[in-house]
Amino acid sequence: MAKAIPTRDEDYSLWYNELVKKAGLAENSQVRGCMVIKPYGFAIWEKMQQALDQMFKDTGHENAYFPLFIPKSFLSREADHVEGFAKECAVVTHYRLKTDESKKGVVVDPDARLEEELIIRPTSETVIWDSYKNWIQSYRDLPLKINQWANVVRWELRTRLFLRTAEFLWQEGHTAHATKQEAIEETELMLGVYADFVENFMAVPVIKGVKTASERFAGAVDTFCIEAMMQDKKALQAGTSHFLGQNFAKAFNVKFASKEGKEEFVWGTSWGVSTRLMGALIMAHSDDDGLVLPPKLAPIQVAVVPIYKTDEELSKITKVVNGLSSELKANGISVKYDDRDTHKPGWKFAEYELKGVPARIAIGPRDLENGTVEIARRDTKEKSTIALENVLNHITNLMEEMQTSIYDKALDFRTENTYQADSYEEFKKLVEKGFVYAHWDGTDETEEKIKEETKATIRCIPFDQKKEDGKCIFSGNPSTGRVLFAKAY
Amino acid sequence: MAKAIPTRDEDYSLWYNELVKKAGLAENSQVRGCMVIKPYGFAIWEKMQQALDQMFKDTGHENAYFPLFIPKSFLSREADHVEGFAKECAVVTHYRLKTDESKKGVVVDPDARLEEELIIRPTSETVIWDSYKNWIQSYRDLPLKINQWANVVRWELRTRLFLRTAEFLWQEGHTAHATKQEAIEETELMLGVYADFVENFMAVPVIKGVKTASERFAGAVDTFCIEAMMQDKKALQAGTSHFLGQNFAKAFNVKFASKEGKEEFVWGTSWGVSTRLMGALIMAHSDDDGLVLPPKLAPIQVAVVPIYKTDEELSKITKVVNGLSSELKANGISVKYDDRDTHKPGWKFAEYELKGVPARIAIGPRDLENGTVEIARRDTKEKSTIALENVLNHITNLMEEMQTSIYDKALDFRTENTYQADSYEEFKKLVEKGFVYAHWDGTDETEEKIKEETKATIRCIPFDQKKEDGKCIFSGNPSTGRVLFAKAY
Repeated sequence: MAKAIPTRDEDYSLWYNELVKKAGLAENSQVRGCMVIKPYGFAIWEKMQQALDQMFKDTGHENAYFPLFIPKSFLSREADHVEGFAKECAVVTHYRLKTDESKKGVVVDPDARLEEELIIRPTSETVIWDSYKNWIQSYRDLPLKINQWANVVRWELRTRLFLRTAEFLWQEGHTAHATKQEAIEETELMLGVYADFVENFMAVPVIKGVKTASERFAGAVDTFCIEAMMQDKKALQAGTSHFLGQNFAKAFNVKFASKEGKEEFVWGTSWGVSTRLMGALIMAHSDDDGLVLPPKLAPIQVAVVPIYKTDEELSKITKVVNGLSSELKANGISVKYDDRDTHKPGWKFAEYELKGVPARIAIGPRDLENGTVEIARRDTKEKSTIALENVLNHITNLMEEMQTSIYDKALDFRTENTYQADSYEEFKKLVEKGFVYAHWDGTDETEEKIKEETKATIRCIPFDQKKEDGKCIFSGNPSTGRVLFAKAY
Repeated sequence: MAKAIPTRDEDYSLWYNELVKKAGLAENSQVRGCMVIKPYGFAIWEKMQQALDQMFKDTGHENAYFPLFIPKSFLSREADHVEGFAKECAVVTHYRLKTDESKKGVVVDPDARLEEELIIRPTSETVIWDSYKNWIQSYRDLPLKINQWANVVRWELRTRLFLRTAEFLWQEGHTAHATKQEAIEETELMLGVYADFVENFMAVPVIKGVKTASERFAGAVDTFCIEAMMQDKKALQAGTSHFLGQNFAKAFNVKFASKEGKEEFVWGTSWGVSTRLMGALIMAHSDDDGLVLPPKLAPIQVAVVPIYKTDEELSKITKVVNGLSSELKANGISVKYDDRDTHKPGWKFAEYELKGVPARIAIGPRDLENGTVEIARRDTKEKSTIALENVLNHITNLMEEMQTSIYDKALDFRTENTYQADSYEEFKKLVEKGFVYAHWDGTDETEEKIKEETKATIRCIPFDQKKEDGKCIFSGNPSTGRVLFAKAY
């Protein structure tokens, strides 16, 4: 692996971009802002999908699929929604091409203009609530708890692989309930599912909270979120869960007959996470040598590299490795034996470091003699010589330990870089260095001013906010608790 | 379940449409030609996806994801390809909406016109080969065996749920090889995977063969296909695998350095199956009472319905059912216990018949006394009284037996409705009744004339075609073997 990447200190942004490309995760396509997710990147995303999908099903949700296209008029039905999404959407206006008369290619056929333009979904509330109108008549049809895995398009001006792309992959849950209380509980439940996933699979600690009005989803009554700290101390919003009130039910006229026979509007929620999580995963843990993947999401958990000079040595090593691999695989550990003769062991070591494979086993002639292997763990780079009969046990423990240890490291990092500010002067200094908890007067104006002057935003009003009387760092007006500020992706 | 569907004899086409809707599989959306796949339909599609995905991985393929959008100019690079796909594609011309001045909604912002229009992918050869250009330099980078699960759009004029929709879900495999031979072997391998899946999971027998030139994929050298017979005796193309030769490699300039150091164009294949398979599954097996699902693809394999008058009876039944369910689930059988008090047992029986649940267990007070349950199988509607301790064994065998028996029934049906014709007069009569093997002179003209006059097409030149001298039924010109004709979906 001669392909070195820049260090984080040199250029954090370039480090990220190069890492994503060189580790084979994704690359830009010829279409502006659209990425190609390469096989290794997609394998990580698949592991994320599987874990999340199971969590959704375990909490009573079913998958379905709704159209890619949204009639232009649907967007306008909910006033805030159209305001939020009309500005950045891809619009289909025609349904046919024809041969150019100058024969150099094809052109849009002007006769094939759509009567009503179609929007490529930026999110599917409108098209889904239009269906729910027909699916919901009575309280017996509720709750309706549906999720879809889909691609969506938001025409972003500045794009970055995984973090912000014109097309991205995501899941969007859309639920309908008979009561406000039940819808709020669902919104909280799904934020909890996201926090559980991000902390326990991605090994990234998160702060749960509620967004301020200005950062709310367009069309929601309340947006709950989880916020994570990246290694450059910026915040990344890792998932959102929205309480929609009756906004979409009213916009699409979705009513139900209650047990008492009364007609009422339905209460809604929606919630989503996207391939942006890949960006969070990469930026939270990786180092200057490449990716660091938590074992639960690593497509390959153990890479085995033989070290040999002669074919005879290789064949002896291969025999031992085959036994070892079977044993590991039978215990649910994914193993890749890399016996390619086209690359040297050192190249392979660097390659698996770049790709974030949690454990690397090297085995050479001396190991054969001693009945041992060398095991290197990716996160700390520690190496240990382990007797063959103890490898399964060692690897099993190592996977658990790394999962915890990667999380702990990220949590320590966040703790070390989280501050409290009690004056605006102090705030301006500290917010350059990490997360800052500070008092805010609750107004849009103050929030906007602070953003203008410092580029920091209110990430959330934390769920675990302590009641504490104080004064807004900007206006000096009274406040009853601190909110979380940070610069963000 | 008061919602009866028409019988197949009354109106086969209406029977299909109503079945799809009433069984909760799919419905039309407000967007012309785009369907909503409802949770029960999607659960079946998920089971298909899981089985196929595993088969692709077992044959050495990796998943990835390529952009939804294709620059208009890409389509034109391969002459046949653009000819085949330009006529029916959705075209994105703008990337923003703005508020209408008359305030009634939003309109396309004329200032946000794209420099080059984007096509919603009808298939992804062009965008993928454009990436392959950068991924392939040397023989060491080959073979490249990639699959993607995606939505695609083809602007069809007449659409039908699952069978032909503007947007559909599919997988598309795209592989690149160093030699022609290897690419042909891949094309055959994947057709074999499809045949294996359709026969052994969907329980639908297929005929493997090669398409005539006129039915070939636009841009392929050869298209292999599997063809299945539906209950109205029409053919349905269930999957295709294309040998692309060097067509896309040449169009996108994808070359590799061979072992000998020579620059050569890469050989390609592509292959796909889509949500159309849902249509095949439904039409091949279902009856006038609803769906008949092969156990391997049934989201619910066993539905349990309690029959009771008092709460005390229900609670005794529930206790027995809980034990039974655990036992079945522990053996990999999916079970749904339907103890809703909002519906009567008869309604539930009809509901599970409509939904094609392979086995239904009914259990009432007399069963409790006798230590038995009643098991009804969906395909034959036979009922048996089975002792509690034998239920697991009975159900396990029943699932296997039904899987085979549903396949055998479909195979018998196809055999009974397959003919040989030796004259055009005979052909015209027989092709109204099913599949017909007949001699053809190998020309486009004859194929086209027969299609015009009878609406029957050549489904394929079967792989197992017997060498047999004969005369073309239409032209009388010599032929060396029979091809398969049928009317088709």
